[in-house]
Amino acid sequence: MESVTQVLQSSQRHINGERLWGSLMALARLGATVKGGVCRLALTDLDRQARDLFVQWCEEAGCTVSIDAVGNIFARRPGRNPELPPVMTGSHIDTQPTGGKFDGCFGVLAGLEVIRTLNDLGVETEAPLEVVVWTNEEGSRFAPCMMGSGVFAQKFTLEETLAKVDAQGITMGDALNAIGYAGSRTPTGHAVGAYFEAHIEQGPILEDQHKTIGVVLGALGQKWFDLTLRGVEAHAGPTPMHLRKDALVGASVVVGAVNRVALAHQPHACGTVGCLQAYPGSRNVIPGEVRMTLDFRHLEPARLDSMIAQVRGVIESTCKQHGLSYDLVPTADFPPLYFEHGCVEAVRSAAHGLGLSHMDIVSGAGHDAIFLAELGPAGMIFVPCEGGISHNEIENADPEDLAAGCAVLLRAMLAASVAVADRLAA
Amino acid sequence: MESVTQVLQSSQRHINGERLWGSLMALARLGATVKGGVCRLALTDLDRQARDLFVQWCEEAGCTVSIDAVGNIFARRPGRNPELPPVMTGSHIDTQPTGGKFDGCFGVLAGLEVIRTLNDLGVETEAPLEVVVWTNEEGSRFAPCMMGSGVFAQKFTLEETLAKVDAQGITMGDALNAIGYAGSRTPTGHAVGAYFEAHIEQGPILEDQHKTIGVVLGALGQKWFDLTLRGVEAHAGPTPMHLRKDALVGASVVVGAVNRVALAHQPHACGTVGCLQAYPGSRNVIPGEVRMTLDFRHLEPARLDSMIAQVRGVIESTCKQHGLSYDLVPTADFPPLYFEHGCVEAVRSAAHGLGLSHMDIVSGAGHDAIFLAELGPAGMIFVPCEGGISHNEIENADPEDLAAGCAVLLRAMLAASVAVADRLAA
Repeated sequence: MESVTQVLQSSQRHINGERLWGSLMALARLGATVKGGVCRLALTDLDRQARDLFVQWCEEAGCTVSIDAVGNIFARRPGRNPELPPVMTGSHIDTQPTGGKFDGCFGVLAGLEVIRTLNDLGVETEAPLEVVVWTNEEGSRFAPCMMGSGVFAQKFTLEETLAKVDAQGITMGDALNAIGYAGSRTPTGHAVGAYFEAHIEQGPILEDQHKTIGVVLGALGQKWFDLTLRGVEAHAGPTPMHLRKDALVGASVVVGAVNRVALAHQPHACGTVGCLQAYPGSRNVIPGEVRMTLDFRHLEPARLDSMIAQVRGVIESTCKQHGLSYDLVPTADFPPLYFEHGCVEAVRSAAHGLGLSHMDIVSGAGHDAIFLAELGPAGMIFVPCEGGISHNEIENADPEDLAAGCAVLLRAMLAASVAVADRLAA
Repeated sequence: MESVTQVLQSSQRHINGERLWGSLMALARLGATVKGGVCRLALTDLDRQARDLFVQWCEEAGCTVSIDAVGNIFARRPGRNPELPPVMTGSHIDTQPTGGKFDGCFGVLAGLEVIRTLNDLGVETEAPLEVVVWTNEEGSRFAPCMMGSGVFAQKFTLEETLAKVDAQGITMGDALNAIGYAGSRTPTGHAVGAYFEAHIEQGPILEDQHKTIGVVLGALGQKWFDLTLRGVEAHAGPTPMHLRKDALVGASVVVGAVNRVALAHQPHACGTVGCLQAYPGSRNVIPGEVRMTLDFRHLEPARLDSMIAQVRGVIESTCKQHGLSYDLVPTADFPPLYFEHGCVEAVRSAAHGLGLSHMDIVSGAGHDAIFLAELGPAGMIFVPCEGGISHNEIENADPEDLAAGCAVLLRAMLAASVAVADRLAA
């Protein structure tokens, strides 16, 4: 029998890294691919098998399991004070079609390992703890992504979400019923004392910097555009260089500018041209049109806008110089998100208390935690993944790093459980 | 009755521009498109109708018509000395699927107008004259292009050519038989006293320089490559700029270099990237691979090689800088061609004698004349086309410019007929 304070003051990890790894490997067998990855699309029978296994493990750990109308699974470990809002953790167990073993599953099973560890230690918390599996985070079978947490955070309505169809015309609602995970609980109005999500980084920064823990400060704001450049399609032989209106030459200047501007706005700036098509696409015809996408990300809204203004300036001057016209159409606009200071500090202090190398980091991608941050204090813990590779069957992570991330999650949740109780008392 | 010398010494055009224009418009009705262009693919029934009309016009003009085994049509106006090799002219009457009224047809009907004019004037030449329709210059239905002149110049064998199939699986030989134009004449061994081809420029230079006649010095050498750049595909959010291996950023530097190097090797240099595909082509994924084509053209072989060496240097340094690998695979290599000095001079002197504005020019595209140049002295006459646009239904040319080009063809052919006779006498 240890107390929360004893655990928080110890420099021991407490959690059982081998048990965590074993659970990850057991879950990864459901939908395992020949190349070592996992294909377990949301609301398929494989997803059901994985959900059943998670529910079984949680019940074995003494949790009360409830399921809401969008299929989110809540496994609750009671606290001394059932009136307190729960300290939550979670992630997802659906995967990309050629996904890996760790994306999402690490966050869910790290949460389970926290529960198991507290059981082993006989630790009681004031606030209840909850481990959540969010439905369809990947968005591979049913778009958009982060559906379960999106409905929970009232970003999407239940009705519109259940009406989404997959490529075979099956509705999300029918798929949920078919696997028996259309629960009775209302997916909204659930109090959140705090929310933490442990996740592989899905990028190369921690590995590159030789750090075990990423203290996630927030998520980059994103602005996306479709850019079309129009010149004049002409024969590559008889059309002299100085009389050309080559849309691809213009586009190449824009690609360079997106890259240069992002490099100039470090840290926390990204600029990417992911799609670029030249038309008509014939080897001896000067491209008359290029369609491309622009993806800008930054943690500071003003610098995000300044990146875009600079690239827009390059587009305008390039079009003038090469006799082109252009359309720049916004297609997405997500503001930057800063996680709650207390949660960020809880993660940093846990890493510090455990003697783990750590660094501040920012999430460039979307996670359920970003929606949860609208309902209460939230934070994230990143651990390295090999080569920064994710959404890929070769996705890999070091068992030691996963254990370290789980230990940080344990301490952060315990600290939050104290903070939630103190908040109520104050 | 005028003599060749009288015509050559006169500053009159002699030819009938309205008759030439009328013939062009009559031919353009066969396969006329709604947008004002022509769709008359090689060896279709429309091609047969156009061939029949040409043959009828030539026979009405007193020519002897013969057809060879690849469908080339030779309309011969006898000379005083039947032993002399003919002074030839011609081009093609097949079109692109969305072609214009002038590409090819102008050269053929300018030749016919030369015959008609000589008939009107009662001029007799020493050497015979011939107007030729070359089969399938465009290569739209049966690849490759310039088939008829290619077989004539022994670039392609008759057998391989007749075995080519269109998209419907019909062989070139069957299509030729179906329209009744598989002639009995051997397509090789035909002596060529001289060959001239009048053609619209298919580029914007003459219009830009306000010149009526282009004295064609030769054709650009061409070297084509397929370039693949390989980096690492990664998520556009979590992958910081300095750790990326973005194949498209590398490709954009190469596109810029191809353009810059061609501009630096003027005159007569072209550099074009016509195709560029970024993979996987997802808006929030850093492109891991880019496949692109490089098309280099120059009149001087050494400068062509120097352009390629410079771009290769940029590819190497760019790959080093951005952590990319590359494959650069040659796909075509056509040496530059210089037309015979006497023929070039005959065109220049004809333009000068008629008081027409003119300039030296180089063909950036392929023409039947390029194959004919292997069999005897050859030259070309360019006239402007509106906006430099060709291979397009809106292709257009000024009747005055076409008449001027035809008048230059008349004088050049007459001068060559004297030269052919002199050569034999010498």
